Amino acid sequence: MERPQVPETTIQRLPVYLRCLLRAQQDSKPVVSSLQIAGMSGGNAAQVRKDLSYLGELGTRGIGYDTAALIAHVSRILGVNERRRVAIVGFGRLGGALRSYSGLPERGFEVVAVFDSDPAKIGLDADGIPVRSVSHLEEGLAQTRTEIVLLATPASVTQRIAEKAVAAGIKALLNLAPVELDVPDDVAVRQVCLSTDLQILSFHLAQEGNR
Amino acid sequence: MERPQVPETTIQRLPVYLRCLLRAQQDSKPVVSSLQIAGMSGGNAAQVRKDLSYLGELGTRGIGYDTAALIAHVSRILGVNERRRVAIVGFGRLGGALRSYSGLPERGFEVVAVFDSDPAKIGLDADGIPVRSVSHLEEGLAQTRTEIVLLATPASVTQRIAEKAVAAGIKALLNLAPVELDVPDDVAVRQVCLSTDLQILSFHLAQEGNR
Repeated sequence: MERPQVPETTIQRLPVYLRCLLRAQQDSKPVVSSLQIAGMSGGNAAQVRKDLSYLGELGTRGIGYDTAALIAHVSRILGVNERRRVAIVGFGRLGGALRSYSGLPERGFEVVAVFDSDPAKIGLDADGIPVRSVSHLEEGLAQTRTEIVLLATPASVTQRIAEKAVAAGIKALLNLAPVELDVPDDVAVRQVCLSTDLQILSFHLAQEGNR
Repeated sequence: MERPQVPETTIQRLPVYLRCLLRAQQDSKPVVSSLQIAGMSGGNAAQVRKDLSYLGELGTRGIGYDTAALIAHVSRILGVNERRRVAIVGFGRLGGALRSYSGLPERGFEVVAVFDSDPAKIGLDADGIPVRSVSHLEEGLAQTRTEIVLLATPASVTQRIAEKAVAAGIKALLNLAPVELDVPDDVAVRQVCLSTDLQILSFHLAQEGNR
């Protein structure tokens, strides 16, 4: 199989383009231009064309891209044409919110396991699956063939849990705890950090206040 | 007051640098080099130096940056030396998780109001503040002098709520609903989208599987 060398910054924009393309398909647009994708995604057309050029010769000059074909192609590049099995570690309010977040199954991410350390929570029903003990994390991840671990644990224990997940062979972590993780280079990590987003908004407010 | 023209990509890295600098301060490092900041933030030293150069002449060649001075400066640029008043709209599981998220007050973001549309929730105690009716959103935002609105609402109503917030004079929105917002250009929006992060992880898993 061909392995395009796609820059990391382009990869980060592909999910946004995919969301725009799905919307265009819903709106019954069989063809979309780079300008339309740019308009929907908040980028610029030249950037869209450059990003999509990494994926191969896809568009027709002066016409645009075949919406359905581009959706299929971007989905394949992102590996989201296959369903991914995810586990949530930490079943507090945040973990509970993740369990019931409809965006996950809609995008092809199936929650197959939920873990917590609180004996009072272990065995509880988490929307159809039992809460497992985090002390059996490695066996649980293996049994459920989990591919991605979502860390919704207190910051103080998150590094340790991440290491146990990596020891169990996990290669992808989504970290929601406000702490930087140190994991081997072959493990992909995404850090969700609300404080960072809020600080960026705060910057814009500070600018606004000084106009 | 001087208004440095800082590129948006640099702004997005400043909160990460700030987190690293606070860690260095905790570890009793009075001076940090660009290489150390790069090491902690997962970037490279040249990028760190370039980003920080937008903030003025701060470091000493061959020595590094004064940790405390740089923290103060970056905090001021980000406008996080002042406390920011935030409101949460949507008091479901996600809104509840946000209300109790310790990362907010720790970073200077104070939750001053919580709104929901469910009559059964209105008036409930949300960790010390009452849940308000979203039908009085505009008055509530004005009364509490809210600066940033966190949208934890169902996707279908989020655009409408955002418009009401903007009508009430809000200039900064953090959107946690899986929907793209359309607001005036002078309103800053950050979109938190777990699906995007998961799709990027999925890409790395797809690459891994083809090695």
